[in-house]
Parts: sequence; structure tokens; C-alpha cells
Amino acid sequence: MSTTATTLKGQPLDKAVLDSVLRRRMFYTPSFEIYGGVSGLYDYGPPGTALQSNILDVWRKHFVLEEDMLEVDCSVLTPHVVFKTSGHVDRFADWMCKDPKFGDILRADHFVEEILEARLKGDKEARGQKVEDKEDEDAKKKKKKKIKGAQEAVKLDDAVVKEYEEVLAQIDNYDGAQLGELIRKYDLRHPRSGLQPTEPVAFNLMFQTSIGPSSNLAGYLRPETAQGQFLNFAKLLEFNQGAMPFASASVGKSYRNEISPRAGLLRVREFLMAEIEHFVDPESGKKHNRFSEVENIELDFLDRHTQLSGQTTTKRMAIGQAVKDGVVDNETLGYFLARIYLFLKKIGIDTRKIRFRQHMANEMAHYACDCWDAELHTSSGWIECVGCADRSAYDLTVHSKQTDKPLLVRQRLDTPRTVQEWEVTVDKKKFGPFFKKDSKSVETVILASTQECREAWAKELESSGKANVDVPELGKVEVSKDLLIIEFRTRQEHVREYTPNVIEPSFGIGRILYALCEHAYWVREGDEARSVLSFPPAIAPTKVIMMPLSSNKDFVPHITRLSQKLRAAQISTRVDDSSATIGKRYSRNDELGTLLGITVDFQTLKDSTVTLRDRDTTRQVRADEDTILTAIREIVGGSKTWEDIEKELPVFEGQEVED
Amino acid sequence: MSTTATTLKGQPLDKAVLDSVLRRRMFYTPSFEIYGGVSGLYDYGPPGTALQSNILDVWRKHFVLEEDMLEVDCSVLTPHVVFKTSGHVDRFADWMCKDPKFGDILRADHFVEEILEARLKGDKEARGQKVEDKEDEDAKKKKKKKIKGAQEAVKLDDAVVKEYEEVLAQIDNYDGAQLGELIRKYDLRHPRSGLQPTEPVAFNLMFQTSIGPSSNLAGYLRPETAQGQFLNFAKLLEFNQGAMPFASASVGKSYRNEISPRAGLLRVREFLMAEIEHFVDPESGKKHNRFSEVENIELDFLDRHTQLSGQTTTKRMAIGQAVKDGVVDNETLGYFLARIYLFLKKIGIDTRKIRFRQHMANEMAHYACDCWDAELHTSSGWIECVGCADRSAYDLTVHSKQTDKPLLVRQRLDTPRTVQEWEVTVDKKKFGPFFKKDSKSVETVILASTQECREAWAKELESSGKANVDVPELGKVEVSKDLLIIEFRTRQEHVREYTPNVIEPSFGIGRILYALCEHAYWVREGDEARSVLSFPPAIAPTKVIMMPLSSNKDFVPHITRLSQKLRAAQISTRVDDSSATIGKRYSRNDELGTLLGITVDFQTLKDSTVTLRDRDTTRQVRADEDTILTAIREIVGGSKTWEDIEKELPVFEGQEVED
Repeated sequence: MSTTATTLKGQPLDKAVLDSVLRRRMFYTPSFEIYGGVSGLYDYGPPGTALQSNILDVWRKHFVLEEDMLEVDCSVLTPHVVFKTSGHVDRFADWMCKDPKFGDILRADHFVEEILEARLKGDKEARGQKVEDKEDEDAKKKKKKKIKGAQEAVKLDDAVVKEYEEVLAQIDNYDGAQLGELIRKYDLRHPRSGLQPTEPVAFNLMFQTSIGPSSNLAGYLRPETAQGQFLNFAKLLEFNQGAMPFASASVGKSYRNEISPRAGLLRVREFLMAEIEHFVDPESGKKHNRFSEVENIELDFLDRHTQLSGQTTTKRMAIGQAVKDGVVDNETLGYFLARIYLFLKKIGIDTRKIRFRQHMANEMAHYACDCWDAELHTSSGWIECVGCADRSAYDLTVHSKQTDKPLLVRQRLDTPRTVQEWEVTVDKKKFGPFFKKDSKSVETVILASTQECREAWAKELESSGKANVDVPELGKVEVSKDLLIIEFRTRQEHVREYTPNVIEPSFGIGRILYALCEHAYWVREGDEARSVLSFPPAIAPTKVIMMPLSSNKDFVPHITRLSQKLRAAQISTRVDDSSATIGKRYSRNDELGTLLGITVDFQTLKDSTVTLRDRDTTRQVRADEDTILTAIREIVGGSKTWEDIEKELPVFEGQEVED
Repeated sequence: MSTTATTLKGQPLDKAVLDSVLRRRMFYTPSFEIYGGVSGLYDYGPPGTALQSNILDVWRKHFVLEEDMLEVDCSVLTPHVVFKTSGHVDRFADWMCKDPKFGDILRADHFVEEILEARLKGDKEARGQKVEDKEDEDAKKKKKKKIKGAQEAVKLDDAVVKEYEEVLAQIDNYDGAQLGELIRKYDLRHPRSGLQPTEPVAFNLMFQTSIGPSSNLAGYLRPETAQGQFLNFAKLLEFNQGAMPFASASVGKSYRNEISPRAGLLRVREFLMAEIEHFVDPESGKKHNRFSEVENIELDFLDRHTQLSGQTTTKRMAIGQAVKDGVVDNETLGYFLARIYLFLKKIGIDTRKIRFRQHMANEMAHYACDCWDAELHTSSGWIECVGCADRSAYDLTVHSKQTDKPLLVRQRLDTPRTVQEWEVTVDKKKFGPFFKKDSKSVETVILASTQECREAWAKELESSGKANVDVPELGKVEVSKDLLIIEFRTRQEHVREYTPNVIEPSFGIGRILYALCEHAYWVREGDEARSVLSFPPAIAPTKVIMMPLSSNKDFVPHITRLSQKLRAAQISTRVDDSSATIGKRYSRNDELGTLLGITVDFQTLKDSTVTLRDRDTTRQVRADEDTILTAIREIVGGSKTWEDIEKELPVFEGQEVED
């Protein structure tokens, strides 16, 4: 896995310099920094907030508007029972271990990963190979505790190198016990104490609070927006006038109490998500009626089998082929992978730095039956930025069972269909008195049982008069034939009822935003290297910076009039009338990713012409105000490029005043 | 205080009907409803989410874009120390009491208010006057516990009526002890137990959680977005290149653990706020350079003195006059009150239902030195929807003191100024050993002292050799002259340093959204009364509904082409191809507030013309597709009204198919 990050122009990326630009220009900044900060919490300053809001704007147009999705906005505060039912209370956890001497709390998979990577690095050094330092420069500066293993150049056996690489290729696939085994097997020690950490234990990632004045209603901050959408399924279906398939969507904050947040926006405790829940009939084969629009799009795939074999080589193929070959399970999943790719491309992500990685079995969230991540390559390696999971009918089923509310679709059949299946009848009058407090649990299991299960029970009832029912909380329970009848029946159905399956594209906006900054970043060589952030027109935080050449009062009315016109055209504009040179002001705005610059100079006072400067080429044209305004509208709206404008308007080679 | 709410057309407002429309059309819905819901938590469905997002869009253009505000997005999770310093841990509380028999938890001011209102209602009934029932119909249906006192018609003395009305006029002005007194004085009893509730105690409204795996960092969910903006003040000033005044702004969720949330969106535990912090030089007299643009706008004022005298009559005057007369303290505060008014008007709030009420002394938040609320009249009476507080230098000062970080403005003076003032010098070497652990507290008080205070100490030091320093945590502390020197000195200042004052307009988006629904609502009389929500073009959740007359397949290409064109013009559109009659589909969309309707019918197949229908008048025009698209763009963009379009295009009086 290469960790060599490059800029937009292929230069080696100096993360320290980029981070300093992003901080200095207030794209983001540690929250509560004057109080020392809290790891994993960041604030977005003005350019970061604008960038985020532009990304969301494109997201809404690309997904919600384009496909008539039903956008909702649900509560973050959620009572215990919801996440108990969804499985998050029991299973939404990471593996945590402790240094036995100093008590440092470690995330077990990260610990294993970092020590093994450090050993591999030491090995490379011993072999005299060039080593890319993956360490976060910023973390170094802040003297943040970062685990580093045997940094000394120690050569390893070739077989050991291969073994380590295989472990790293599937690091996300290990559970706590397996991570504990790896720690013992490879004798992984914390460099500070020289000791192996304690056995990994599960640490639930949800923030807890209590709701109401009496403190007796436990609640959590949601770790995903999805549950709110599932709980509203029946109302959304009704709002959609019963039509299937359809998707809901939601943009909002979610919270995960990360064990060890990384410096920067890549692993944080509070983050903005944009999630889609696409509800589909499982019997449709999860076909998608717009799949043909995307089937020829080529993506880089890293499937489950490749990773298990210890490899990280991607395979490039058209999404149509990938679905045909069964690499991607179905059309709807495939459709969204392609749409995710197109979205990322549209906002300016470097398409050479996108791959789709399939989750391994142990890595998948408890609700998923298949999952692909869109990973973006950054200076921290490949980072999961969008997940696309097939959650099957899991969530709707568990909530429906728990609440006794139907979360299903009733489909009127044009021609009734004949159904033959095993049906169960529970004798309610006897059931209650017999099983007492357990009767509901036993009944639920029986009613929710599969056809295979029912067939087996029918045989048991016939042979022994009793069926063995496996109830999670109780173990095997015997149910006799006077309580339970199971028959194979034939009936006509006029309405078909089914629980839809869910395909869920889920976007981590902060991670995408950070990756985008790396992908848009490059350094303009010259007397002095200058940082530039080349965001696409729709994404640039500010579209136009307007600058009077000097503090001469005669420039003011021109600036004011232009500002008003641009504001009326809803083009985000700022004025820089500071005393810095024009060159310095342009540099500042190149770091801010500002798309275009207007200068008002002495020529303007004579003939009302102004110059327009392109961020990426630093080239300029000059024309009268209204012509320039039209050019700006065309570039920002996407109907023309700078190259088009340069062909139409007189190029200006005058005072590009660099300091 | 009249509680008689009316619709947009002046009809008596039937809140039960409106609420049922809003629920049925999924504007909002109780969160987790299939689990029984949690009071004070609501989800927005598709029309509510669109409405919210359109309100925010206008808000951003009206405030952020128009005045170049610096928008930021800060963490909701906040460590203890921040809210300890800001005063929220100690003072952000409501008064809570309990029914001694059944343990019902009551918000003390609401309890007093409701019992007194019930008595006044009983009195009116006894006098044979008409009584408006203020009770929330929805709450009745849900059999929510609602406190009701002596509902029987009991006539009161005229003097008692007057006394009750005076108490109610200033109900927000009482503290816990005073509320307890009122309970005893008027013998206010809980109707369920027949007993007086317990003495009111303070209940802090912040939700608490802990951050990180070791559970030792206590944190809160922010109750306002403001603190994040204050903590970033130094960075924002730098981003603004040192220029003053300037404003930051933020849109985000905040949380308050309300003691007794009301049904509906008016008092909830999780809510969206949009807040502006305008930083201004206190020595500027808080002038505002755009005040002249708004000075003639007339507003209805209800000032502090009027309320204290037991009255609720508003005074209408121009904001310019109000500032001149000292009703509103300064231009900046006045400017924002007028801008708030213009914003509310722009989104469709009925201007006859807006008043500006000044907070009384005990009612103000601990940080405020003056505060006006924009209150909107609804079926629940006058509701605070926007607060506009002068927070003075409170927050920046306390955070700066606590962190030892400067949160101030350095202003270079063109001509140096001569300053004569009392200066203090603390002998640090002796101070520490003498005061030990208290030395920092004592020193902070001395360094932060006023000129008056220093002058008094100087005299004490001269006369007795000791100054009496009042330290909040310690009481009077004697500081002798070998530890402290105070002198009256003259010096030249080239740079002036000052802590800016903050004017804070703070918008509760959910409350505004709900009030807007009431203000936009009316009932179309006819064979059957039909509900209509007449939102303005920019605010309507969906702009255009497109309907084929029937399921005839030939209509599909027309609908598809129109959809694509509208989508390209970024006009939010939905298709309703359900089998309901055209009339039913229009009715549904009138309830959704959809602005315009297009019908594709058999005439369309002949000549490609379609009809366009106006929601408010139900009148229609007919023209070819492109002409209709232009008309839609003009209406949605605000450049033309329906009346304009009707003059230009042939009116269509054909099959307005009502069912």
C-alpha cells in the first residue's frame, strides 16, 4: 500500500505545509483551542464552512434533486431502546486495550498496525530503501503521544515481512481476541513501557446522556443518521403515495466517541454525514432502472478475496461488468457506486485517487450483508470516505418486531398469486399461561421463523409431539403440539406484503472535504513557492475577490457597484482593500482557493474597465464591467472555462504586480 | 394578551385542523413515534426539511451575504470548563418544583401561569364573557398531563383579577423564591393532588455527557452556538485582517433539557439556531453605518417599563425615533431589530403579528445587559422567536481571563493619545508566598478593577497602608502597600486595546417555521373547506407539482421533458402521477404549500401546451411549454407575480376538475 501522496500537479505533497495553510486560512481549527482543545473536535472557519456548504449543495443536486429523494431531518438525541433494538448498544464498539504500566488507552487495531508498520519501516531502512514518513507532522509538533515501535533499522526475514504485510492487508478483519493473539504472537510492546498491552475489550462508541428532568430516560447521540430514516419508513412510504422503490436522505451531525482520534479531520468525534437510504423490493433482484446510464463507467475495485489473500492490488473494470461477474452483488449497489464516483469527480476529487474496497466479513457493521467503501488516497494512505452498504431488511425487521408496528410495503397484485408455504398457528389461550413471562419471546421467534425452520419443526411435532425452538434469551425451548400447529397450506394472495431491503450510500463530509483539500492542492514554483488550492468553480469557497489597487478613494464606488452586482447574481464575493500589495493579496486568495480576482486600477477610472485574473494560470483579461460580470457568471455557472474566456476577451499583460 | 389566533385571511384559526394537516403532510412528526416518542423531540419530513432549508437560504442571503459576515461551524460537544467560565453551569437553569404527593415535575413559572390563567378563565365564565380556549388541542387528544386549576366558573374580585393580570404580565421576571412566594400567597395547588408543589429549585438545562474512553472529561451539548464564535474571536479578527466592526454567524443545532416541553415545535429539546455575533467598539457609541437605511421602519415595541406596570400594550414607532428616545439603547441594536423585522416579512411572517418585547431585569440571561425579543403571535399567544441581546463584553472578558489569552482588538491610533489613569503594579514575588493558593484570584480581581475602584484603593493605601479588595470567592481581602502600588500616571498610547462588545441576534428556526405555518395558513371555503398554506415563492417547499391528467402513457414524455428542464433551472419540482383526480391532487398540494401546478392533458398531445395553476387563486393560464417555463422562472425568482402572468398569458377556464 503506497502512502506517497502527491499534489494536483504530481509534486510530492508536503502535508506540514498544507496543514499550515489550512489552519492559517481558517479552513478548520481545533475547537476550544484557547482552552487547550479536545481531541477529535474541530471548528470550521469561514472558508471551511463555505467549502462544506458547497459540497453539500452539489450533493443535494446530484442525489436528492436528481432522483427525487425524500430529505428528512431527524433528532440526534435518541432514546436507549432504539439503539438497543438496532444492535448498536451491544455491538457498536471498537477494541480497546491499555498499557499495563502507564495506563495509556490504545485502540487495539491501531496499536497492532502502527507497531507492525514501524517494524517494516525499520526493515526497509536496514535494507537501504527509501522510506516515506507517514507520520502526521502536526501531531509531531503538538508532541502528541503517538505510538512508535522499533524505529531502529532492524532487518526482518523475508517471510516475516510477507506475514506482516498480509496482516496489515486485512487489519480491519480481526476481532478483539484475534488482535490479542497478534499482540502475543508478534510480541508487540508499547515503546514507552516496554510491555504488551492488556487483552482487548469492547468499548462502545456512542455518547450517552439522559433526557428529561428526572434523569431516568437514558439516551445517546446518534452514531449515524440512518435510524431516524428507518423509524419514519411507514410515513415516508405514505408520503410517496405508496410507490416503490424510493429513497430518503438526510444531512446532519453524528457522534462517535473515538478511542484515539487522529489529528486532523480524518477521525473525529463529531462529524457531518450525508446518508441515503434507498428502499428496494428484494424480489426485484435489486435491479435499478437507470443502471444503463452508468454501466460503462470504469472503477478500481479491491474485493474481499484479494484482501484476504494479503494483496492490495485493484482491478479496473466497468461497473456493468462488475455486476455481471458478481464482483458487485446487484445493480442498485452498482448504480450507487458509479453515482458516488461521479459525485466525487464533480466536486474535484482526483479520480486517480479513488478506489472501491469491499469490506471483509468480520469488518462489516452488524447490520450489513455487503459493503463497499469509496476510499480516497491521501497522505495518511487510503481513507474510507463513503460507505455503500447493503443493509438488507435488517433494521426495518428488528424495529418492526420490537414495536409491533408494520414497517412493510403492501403491493396490490394485478393477478393474484398462489402461495404454498408452511404456516404457523399459535394457541394464544394456552401459550400465555404455559410460558408466562417468556411467552412473548417464544411467540416472536416462532412467528418470525423461516420456511426451513418451520418445516423442521413440523417434522419434530409429527414424530415426537414437540418442537425445539431456539430462543436467543432462553436457549432451546420445547413447544408441544397442543400449543403450536404447523401446516403446509396453499392460498391465493391479492396483496403481497414485504419488508424492503435497504442500500445505503453514506458520506463522511469532513473526510471528503479534507481529501479534497489534498487533491486540490499544489505549489506554484517561482522566486518563492506559493500554495494554491484549485477547487472547481462550484466548490471554491469564494468565487471572486475584488481588490482596489490602492486606498485611493476614487476606487470605492467601482468596488461597491461591482459588489452589489455580484451579490445580486448570488456569486459569493469578498473585498480585500487591505494595504498589502496586489501580489500578496492574490497569494492569500490562492491559498483560500478563490476562483477569480478583479482589480480596480487607474485605468478603471478612465474607461470603467477592470482586470479579471484566473487563479490556476494567473493569467488576466481586461474588459468593461458588464463583460467581466458575464464572464464570471459563465465560469461560475460552468458553461465556459477560463480558456474560453481568454479566447474571447483581450488578454491583459500589464502590471501583474508581484512583490 | 389576546390569544385569538387568525388565519392569513382573518378566519379564526382552528389549531387542531392545522396541526393535523402538518402531521398528515409530514411537515414534522414526533421522533421515534413507533416507540411512543420522546417529548420535545421532533423530526422534519420532506416538506418541513425543504421549508427549513428555504428559510435558512433566505437568512444567509439577508444577513451573511448582505453584510459579509464570517460564517463558522463549531462543535456542539463542549468541555465543562467552557460553560463553567461562561456562567452556564451555574446559571443556565429553570425553576423546577414537584407535586409532593404524585411526584409530577413542574416548571414553576408555567405552573403559576397556568393556574392563574385558569382562575381568570373561570372568572370570565362566571361573568358570562366569551372564553378563548388556549389549550393545545393536540395535547388533549394525546391525553398529555396538562395542569388545569379551578376550571369551575368562580367569580373573582375586580382587584384580584387586576393583581393576577399584573403577575402574568411579568411572569418571566420572577426568580425561584418569588415563584415560591406566589404559590403560597395565592394558594396555588396542583389539581391532581390538591396540594401546593414543593419550593422551586434550579434545574440546569444542559445535557451532559463524557468525552473520551476514560470517561473523565465531562462535557455538555451546547445550549447556544455563541460560545464557539467567541472562542474563535482572535482567529476571526485575524481572518478579517483586523478590521472592525465585523460579525460572525453560525447555523447549527443546540440542546436544552426542557423541564416540560410543550406539544409541537414551540418548546423542544433539540433545535436549530441561526446566530449572529456582531463585534463592535464600545467607544463608538455602538453606531451603525447603515442605520440610515432602516431608520424609518416602524415597529411595535413593548418596553420593560410598560410590562412592569402590568400592561401589555405596544407602542408603534420608527426605529430611528426609538433609538433617539432611548427606548432602544443604541443604533446597532436598533439596526438589527429592523433587519430582523425585514427578514421575517420576507419569509412570509404576517407583519401584523410581530412585536418587539424588551426583557425585564430578572428575565435576562446572565450575560446580557439589554435584550429585545421579536415575538410572533400564534395560537399559543405571543412566542419569542428571535432574541436580540446586547451581551456587552461579558463573554470575551470571562474567557480571556480564564485562559490568559488576549481576546481584544488592537487599534493603531493615527495620532497618539494621552491617557491619564490609575495604574496598578502587583509585586509578584511577594504576592505568591503571601496569598498562596488564593494569589491568582486576588491578582485577577486587582488587574481587572475599574478606575473608580483603583482610586478608592489608592486612598485606602495612603491612609491605612492597606486596601480592601473584594474577591468573589473569598470576600474582603486586605492587601498591604508592600504588595501593591497604585499610581495616577500619564502616558502616550499609540495603540489602543479594547474588548469589543457583542450584539447578538439569535433565531430559533423551528419556532419561526411553526409560526410561519400558522401565518401562511387559511381555509378555502367551498363545498368542502380545504386547507391552503400560502408560503411566498422563495419559501414554498416545492415550487411546481406536475400532473398528467391520467395514466395514459403518451403523457409520460411531456412530464419527463418538463421535469428535466425545471431541474436544470434548479426549481424544486415533484411529479404526482397517482390515480387520484386532478382536484384531489391539487388539494393535496395546496396543503403542502406547493406554489404552482402544471397539468399535461390531451390538448398537450396536440399542441404541446400545458396549463399552469396558481395555488392562491386556483386560476389557470395555458401556453406552450417554454412560455410556461419562463413564467415559472419569473414567479419563483420574484421578478413577476401571478397577476403579472395572468395579464400576459391566456387564462384557462377549462376543466378545473374538482371531485
